[in-house]
Amino acid sequence: MDAAEFRRRGREMVDYVADYLENIEQRPVYPDLEPGYLRSLIPSEAPLEPESYEDVMKDVERVIMPGITHWHSPYFFAYFPAASSYPAMLADMLCGAIGCIGFSWAASPACTELETVMLDWLGKMLQLPECFIAGTDGHGGGVIQGTASEATLISLLAARCKAIRRVQATNPEISEAEVLSKLVAYTSEQAHSSVERAALIGGVMMRKVPTDKTYAVGGHMLKQMVEEDKAAGFIPFYFCATLGTTPSCAFDHTTELGPICNDENMWMHIDAAYAGSAFICPEFRPLLNGIEFADSFNFNPHKWLLVNFDCSKANYYKGNQQINICTDDLDLAALTTVLFASSWVLQHWQIPLGRRFRSLKLWFVFRMYGLKGLQAHIRKQVALAKEFESLVRADKRFEICAEVIMGLVCFRLKGSNELNQNLLKKITKSQEIHLVPCQLSGRFVLRFAICARTTESRHIQQAWRHITQLTFELLQEPSH
Amino acid sequence: MDAAEFRRRGREMVDYVADYLENIEQRPVYPDLEPGYLRSLIPSEAPLEPESYEDVMKDVERVIMPGITHWHSPYFFAYFPAASSYPAMLADMLCGAIGCIGFSWAASPACTELETVMLDWLGKMLQLPECFIAGTDGHGGGVIQGTASEATLISLLAARCKAIRRVQATNPEISEAEVLSKLVAYTSEQAHSSVERAALIGGVMMRKVPTDKTYAVGGHMLKQMVEEDKAAGFIPFYFCATLGTTPSCAFDHTTELGPICNDENMWMHIDAAYAGSAFICPEFRPLLNGIEFADSFNFNPHKWLLVNFDCSKANYYKGNQQINICTDDLDLAALTTVLFASSWVLQHWQIPLGRRFRSLKLWFVFRMYGLKGLQAHIRKQVALAKEFESLVRADKRFEICAEVIMGLVCFRLKGSNELNQNLLKKITKSQEIHLVPCQLSGRFVLRFAICARTTESRHIQQAWRHITQLTFELLQEPSH
Repeated sequence: MDAAEFRRRGREMVDYVADYLENIEQRPVYPDLEPGYLRSLIPSEAPLEPESYEDVMKDVERVIMPGITHWHSPYFFAYFPAASSYPAMLADMLCGAIGCIGFSWAASPACTELETVMLDWLGKMLQLPECFIAGTDGHGGGVIQGTASEATLISLLAARCKAIRRVQATNPEISEAEVLSKLVAYTSEQAHSSVERAALIGGVMMRKVPTDKTYAVGGHMLKQMVEEDKAAGFIPFYFCATLGTTPSCAFDHTTELGPICNDENMWMHIDAAYAGSAFICPEFRPLLNGIEFADSFNFNPHKWLLVNFDCSKANYYKGNQQINICTDDLDLAALTTVLFASSWVLQHWQIPLGRRFRSLKLWFVFRMYGLKGLQAHIRKQVALAKEFESLVRADKRFEICAEVIMGLVCFRLKGSNELNQNLLKKITKSQEIHLVPCQLSGRFVLRFAICARTTESRHIQQAWRHITQLTFELLQEPSH
Repeated sequence: MDAAEFRRRGREMVDYVADYLENIEQRPVYPDLEPGYLRSLIPSEAPLEPESYEDVMKDVERVIMPGITHWHSPYFFAYFPAASSYPAMLADMLCGAIGCIGFSWAASPACTELETVMLDWLGKMLQLPECFIAGTDGHGGGVIQGTASEATLISLLAARCKAIRRVQATNPEISEAEVLSKLVAYTSEQAHSSVERAALIGGVMMRKVPTDKTYAVGGHMLKQMVEEDKAAGFIPFYFCATLGTTPSCAFDHTTELGPICNDENMWMHIDAAYAGSAFICPEFRPLLNGIEFADSFNFNPHKWLLVNFDCSKANYYKGNQQINICTDDLDLAALTTVLFASSWVLQHWQIPLGRRFRSLKLWFVFRMYGLKGLQAHIRKQVALAKEFESLVRADKRFEICAEVIMGLVCFRLKGSNELNQNLLKKITKSQEIHLVPCQLSGRFVLRFAICARTTESRHIQQAWRHITQLTFELLQEPSH
């Protein structure tokens, strides 16, 4: 394919994309397929000779589309949102054409530098303390990490390194292996599995802190576990707080937890993957209070900030903090060194491996929506969740299972877990809307998350009519 | 921006991309800038109100393009290639529109299933043994990992887990921490830094194996180190072989190394990041011999197989092998479980975190080029490297520093390192071509890698004229 054909095919693809998104409501939101459906639809080997573009595009409708869960359908209410917007898609096209691999400053200066400045823009939108902003005297800054597990893992490894050094500074006779076997990390029992995985990879113990009745960790619960562990000879070194948990969007009490971590020399990492985007609205910003006690903080603009997914995990490090992953003095040990005298020293900011020019998407989206446009998007989605909450509360057969703070509503039919499982089965089978469940206090709960950018009040109303219709049918069945 | 505006802007962007790539030769391949150039060119905060698309695009030329190292210029000869092709860009647009996050089968069945089948296509192109192909009785298979360090890290963690279990099975009294402190991993002294980093993260020792005069690791060198370490009470458990090293594209002798690893119960991982793509050509496939001894294998289609960069790291696991990262029996410990009775069980294939629909790009590229088209691309680039090698060999002032097997030529001026450093400085300053250096046996060496898809003989000839012209000027300077 030469440039001339790309011009033609590119225009066709732009139209295909626009048609797909304009008409997405007409597609069943969730596919009705058995695992393994695809293999029999295409050859078992790559073709020897080139095929035509037309043939490939025909197969997109024949092979791919029937197997898509349509995340951008306004009837998709599962998981958390995957952000998407036209400006981000345009930026992605440009990113693909430039096609640089930004593993060092020299590999494409604009790639590294725009990322630094965009994460400052973002940090300022969130009103992060100055120590997290690169373009200040705070010496901290943000970087886009590859994946969620990577961001949490790096904070845990940095904390591990710091703890080993601290212990060995006062007790030089203790081996690294011995310190390692005594280190204890903590996180909420409601935290994402990637936090526990980080501890497994890092080879340290991780204890799950029980939550209160709002599914949040409070100060006294952490304090008690830390005291017990210290008395037993262990070394508490790391706490990962969650702001907006995956099951119910609960917020750990970071203003209580932060001072405990600081007093105990424990690294506090804040994971605000979903809810972080909402802190650009002044009315939600108080939920981030306590950030001033944190050593690192991350959230995913690709969830709720209209920036298409591509590993856009914004990770911030506090200034004057060296991020090393091991205690050896190897240069390459500095996975992400955020120790620099001024923002001119940029080449150590990022993981020294390939990365796309991902900040272009942030730049396009921030400019074409403006802060006000982004705030409006967050507010609209929270309002839609509140609207759905009201519908549920007005129906005495149902109950709300967790406080609705952001765009997530946890609800269930009053009654057994089995009843609710059967309701979800009916919902999934109908293919009209898509939800996933969670477990809260041993109860099977339905999660209704406002996801698509194009979801409006009429979709919420229609979804609720659909749920109540299926509930009516379910309750008519002889078994109930 | 609504769909109608996206249709218009999308067409404009397609033309911008085509114009950029058609005229890329006219841009200086490497920017002439000081670190920190960008911050002063744009505001320090995001705008409150939306800006127009025109204003953003104007800034692409004003702010971004001057800071780009043009990886797809035919005069870019640095690092290794970053693959790019029009079909891959079209697939990327579709991927952005679908915007699914494929962290489980249900999250978008087509996303998981196409990846499985595409990695089978790719594995068959490489003639991998059946135990690495999912759609056979071999029970192995491939997955696209997020980053290079992730792929190597997972293989090392899986090997660590297997080793700890094996030692504890016969010596139940030994603690995990004690086993960990005795484990030794090995890799070539020429291996990529990500291999050493994997060991640092995994908390195990890593020893660098010296290379022979071709910069490759041979069997006796590894054997000797393993024997020494065993005699000293250590437990060798992992060897990472490199096929096509970063400095000089050397090939470790895997047919000698494989049997040693198998005999010693050591996991052998093969990293063929760059060279792996070439194994689709029968004449290069013998370089992959020894793969039958390996437990895992990875290479980057985004380097040399015309698939645009987006973490497209193909990682294959041998069948009947459970990939766990820790010895606890936690479900989530199975970072990538490739243990399944049939290819219908797909949901454990992938890292349970967000991922784009990356296999669409493989599908578009494989079909629109065909195997023959991809082979032609590899062969053309190797021929261009041979052409450059001939030019260098014909000039008695220069020497070739390593055998030219693929698309990389390592060369230098006969003389001091300083002389060669000065030559590279002149080349970089001129901005006409772009190269990076490496160190081989303590000598400063220039790496000339054939990178862009559009590089032709005339660019090689022009690059050589340019290098010899700068050499002439350099040797005229009084200091030489």
